[in-house]
Amino acid sequence: MLDIQRQADDRRLDIDQVGVSDLRYPITVWDKTHGRQETIASLTMSVCLPRHFKGTHMSRFIEALNAHRGEITMRTLPAMLHDLKARLEAKTTRVEARFPYFIERAAPISGAKALMDYDCAFIAESRAEGDAFTLSVRVPVTSLCPCSKAISDYGAHNQRGHVTLDVRPVEGEGGPALIWIEELIEIAEASASAPVYALLKRPDERHVTMQAYDNPAFVEDMVREAAARLKVDPRVAGFRVHVVNHESIHNHGAFAQISGGVTTL
Amino acid sequence: MLDIQRQADDRRLDIDQVGVSDLRYPITVWDKTHGRQETIASLTMSVCLPRHFKGTHMSRFIEALNAHRGEITMRTLPAMLHDLKARLEAKTTRVEARFPYFIERAAPISGAKALMDYDCAFIAESRAEGDAFTLSVRVPVTSLCPCSKAISDYGAHNQRGHVTLDVRPVEGEGGPALIWIEELIEIAEASASAPVYALLKRPDERHVTMQAYDNPAFVEDMVREAAARLKVDPRVAGFRVHVVNHESIHNHGAFAQISGGVTTL
Amino acid sequence: MLDIQRQADDRRLDIDQVGVSDLRYPITVWDKTHGRQETIASLTMSVCLPRHFKGTHMSRFIEALNAHRGEITMRTLPAMLHDLKARLEAKTTRVEARFPYFIERAAPISGAKALMDYDCAFIAESRAEGDAFTLSVRVPVTSLCPCSKAISDYGAHNQRGHVTLDVRPVEGEGGPALIWIEELIEIAEASASAPVYALLKRPDERHVTMQAYDNPAFVEDMVREAAARLKVDPRVAGFRVHVVNHESIHNHGAFAQISGGVTTL
Amino acid sequence: MLDIQRQADDRRLDIDQVGVSDLRYPITVWDKTHGRQETIASLTMSVCLPRHFKGTHMSRFIEALNAHRGEITMRTLPAMLHDLKARLEAKTTRVEARFPYFIERAAPISGAKALMDYDCAFIAESRAEGDAFTLSVRVPVTSLCPCSKAISDYGAHNQRGHVTLDVRPVEGEGGPALIWIEELIEIAEASASAPVYALLKRPDERHVTMQAYDNPAFVEDMVREAAARLKVDPRVAGFRVHVVNHESIHNHGAFAQISGGVTTL
Repeated sequence: MLDIQRQADDRRLDIDQVGVSDLRYPITVWDKTHGRQETIASLTMSVCLPRHFKGTHMSRFIEALNAHRGEITMRTLPAMLHDLKARLEAKTTRVEARFPYFIERAAPISGAKALMDYDCAFIAESRAEGDAFTLSVRVPVTSLCPCSKAISDYGAHNQRGHVTLDVRPVEGEGGPALIWIEELIEIAEASASAPVYALLKRPDERHVTMQAYDNPAFVEDMVREAAARLKVDPRVAGFRVHVVNHESIHNHGAFAQISGGVTTL
Repeated sequence: MLDIQRQADDRRLDIDQVGVSDLRYPITVWDKTHGRQETIASLTMSVCLPRHFKGTHMSRFIEALNAHRGEITMRTLPAMLHDLKARLEAKTTRVEARFPYFIERAAPISGAKALMDYDCAFIAESRAEGDAFTLSVRVPVTSLCPCSKAISDYGAHNQRGHVTLDVRPVEGEGGPALIWIEELIEIAEASASAPVYALLKRPDERHVTMQAYDNPAFVEDMVREAAARLKVDPRVAGFRVHVVNHESIHNHGAFAQISGGVTTL
Repeated sequence: MLDIQRQADDRRLDIDQVGVSDLRYPITVWDKTHGRQETIASLTMSVCLPRHFKGTHMSRFIEALNAHRGEITMRTLPAMLHDLKARLEAKTTRVEARFPYFIERAAPISGAKALMDYDCAFIAESRAEGDAFTLSVRVPVTSLCPCSKAISDYGAHNQRGHVTLDVRPVEGEGGPALIWIEELIEIAEASASAPVYALLKRPDERHVTMQAYDNPAFVEDMVREAAARLKVDPRVAGFRVHVVNHESIHNHGAFAQISGGVTTL
Repeated sequence: MLDIQRQADDRRLDIDQVGVSDLRYPITVWDKTHGRQETIASLTMSVCLPRHFKGTHMSRFIEALNAHRGEITMRTLPAMLHDLKARLEAKTTRVEARFPYFIERAAPISGAKALMDYDCAFIAESRAEGDAFTLSVRVPVTSLCPCSKAISDYGAHNQRGHVTLDVRPVEGEGGPALIWIEELIEIAEASASAPVYALLKRPDERHVTMQAYDNPAFVEDMVREAAARLKVDPRVAGFRVHVVNHESIHNHGAFAQISGGVTTL
């Protein structure tokens, strides 16, 4: 059967990335408490394609994913990248996996437990210059406006916000430095007015209401707080912090962003 | 050229709706202040198909829309429905147009003006039993939790919420009774703790912060307030009120819904 | 601590549904091959609220979900509905769970295996009139246009389509009749030009290309084929079939819909 | 009234971007045929914030947008950027406007006319190093798989794809070089198997079916064709081409991407 993809191409143009996108697949990630967590990812997987080849073989991405049983962790991703390069005869490769991650959280007063969901991502690249890895965590939080509190006789507008931390660990001999999703969630929550929970009883609601009022934070404060913590962490080679507040007094968002260190390969 | 669509079908099954969906097209709607407003709709247009026909002619929906210059109003929709039935030789037809609608709003203290956006929809159906028309408006608002206010020493969690009103006007000789988008926005805002604006200066922010604190409302209160107003309006044959608060202390929503009167044809 | 929710309300309006929405939570569903499958749901859970109560207790929905360990199956949902009514002192309750479901599929010629994802939902309601249960499955398929094939000298436009089957099983003594997600996927695929796979090698690609060309189907044919099969299934009390083709020659969709039997409580 | 935002901040961290996001607003863009086109944008507007200031004044973004009457064109954006820097006392600013753009297209044989929609964006930045401007156009097209055509006895799978061109014009004395949305649409369509239309009669459908079959193109071919054209255009300082095919035989996409020239400031 004809292998059209292997035919020559005369347009003399390398392709930076070619592969599959929006592939939904079950994966396994590491869980600080339970060792492993089964979840469901939306995957983008690609390789570069040199100018002399017409096409790549898309089915091999799925075969590689199956061969590694969908295990997407900081320690196993280097092997999957290496395998993808071999299967697809490519010099560079990139895997992006976006997935929800669940952690059991206890309510602050009652101790009532329930699972909170966080949108996370692993982005792993392998090129001639080396491998690079990014861990991304998007954390829902409460933010309470300092201006609204200061200028009003009572009350203060507050809202759900999202703190997104994209972190590139330093690369060591054994691969990227280990940073847990749980640690990034702590940093994000510490930068906000209060954490967000799946289950709160009334004494808990009272607690987080006053906690938020006691800790007003602009989107500018939140992005700086989180950036300041990442900046001094010796495991962090580069980072980007993005915070958005879904303003309760507007129909649009207020956002801020700080990048630091090495953010591209 | 063969007309496959006109061929016979022997499965003896009428089709309730067949047509085009997710069609993005510029339309004109009525504007209480300026007469007309140009906007952009996502359209679904369909007809029924009797059992003896194999297919419908999809291109005629676009032709009908062009013929009516995309004018989607309570007064012009009956003619478009009639035209669709004629062009597609159908006994029933349905047009759904979802679009953003803009209104200039003045901030409560400074009077600073800016445009607020509201998601609206017209749903029009024509059947043997008669025509039916639904106007839908989704209004962003601020809601402040009465429980949080009552049990806390200070502060109260509040958040952006959305009040969606689906209203079926009574049918008269000249078509459906006239109800303005602007009137439904007023009902939605009156049911909430405070309205939402695109532009607020600091004196305005102080005002809406205290307005929300002075008017706490559960999602249950909001849905009842709006339903109570629609229930007594003689122009309203049927309605559905749906309210959701994007809780600032949770990563999920709190919602409530009340239907009343005639909601189906 | 004050229980604001239990206070009286004097607006004399029952609330049809009040509860939580957009709650993301891990759940367990039945799997025809492996017994059970872990997945992640987006949940909406609600109860009715009589006119004399001001509010409901939202945290109890999460507690009920935890108590049942997120097990959402045709056999366990009746118990969860009963529990929700008891915990929330309500006469009616409704649970909607939307989740991806994975099945290992073998490619038609090579036999290469990979997981395919399907968007599914369970919707369960309990009212005075009885319980009702709906299973929904959204199946991606290939559709090839019969008109394009008939009028062209060669080729035929084809595209990804989605067949959505909402099925209400008949209620028996032991609960709703058992209908597997896998059975509904078979019905949807049999109504289309060809199935869709996650992994196809070249001999498989050749096979499905010709399979689709040999089985052209309008959106009207697909909706009728699926409806005809559901109509004669003695386990099916009511159904709705919705098919949409994401037309490869347009930037909009072509859709059709047929309902049959009992579709509301 | 206290101006909290102007207070000092001692964390010694500059903020790269702070501003408003997801702001929906009517805007005016240039139209090659009609001079101007009214459309609706989703806007993100931001400035940098030096380390010694606590916060920015979010309301001024809306005021600046109003002052320029929402005119977002290659010729007027430099003035809006300058104004934003003045109003917000900032050294850098960034405006991103995403909007649908409509063009009347005639069907290839019948000449039947209808409006096609394209997702476009303007991204404008002003920094110490100078101004930079990016025009982005996302064009829906038909792609037909060369492998499927070559290995099958008849037929070939085809599907809707999206070609996204992000183009940075060279900066001249009068601002960025003028490149029309219409020109980028032509480049995108020329790289695909066939264009996509809103309205096709049967002779048109026959034409585009055979046109696609006569012009098979992998996602790799499409990305190279478009990149080759942008590479030799003297008005283009930098570009990124991204193509995705929504595969009709899979439930995931196939994509490719090529960048060239100057893509960052």
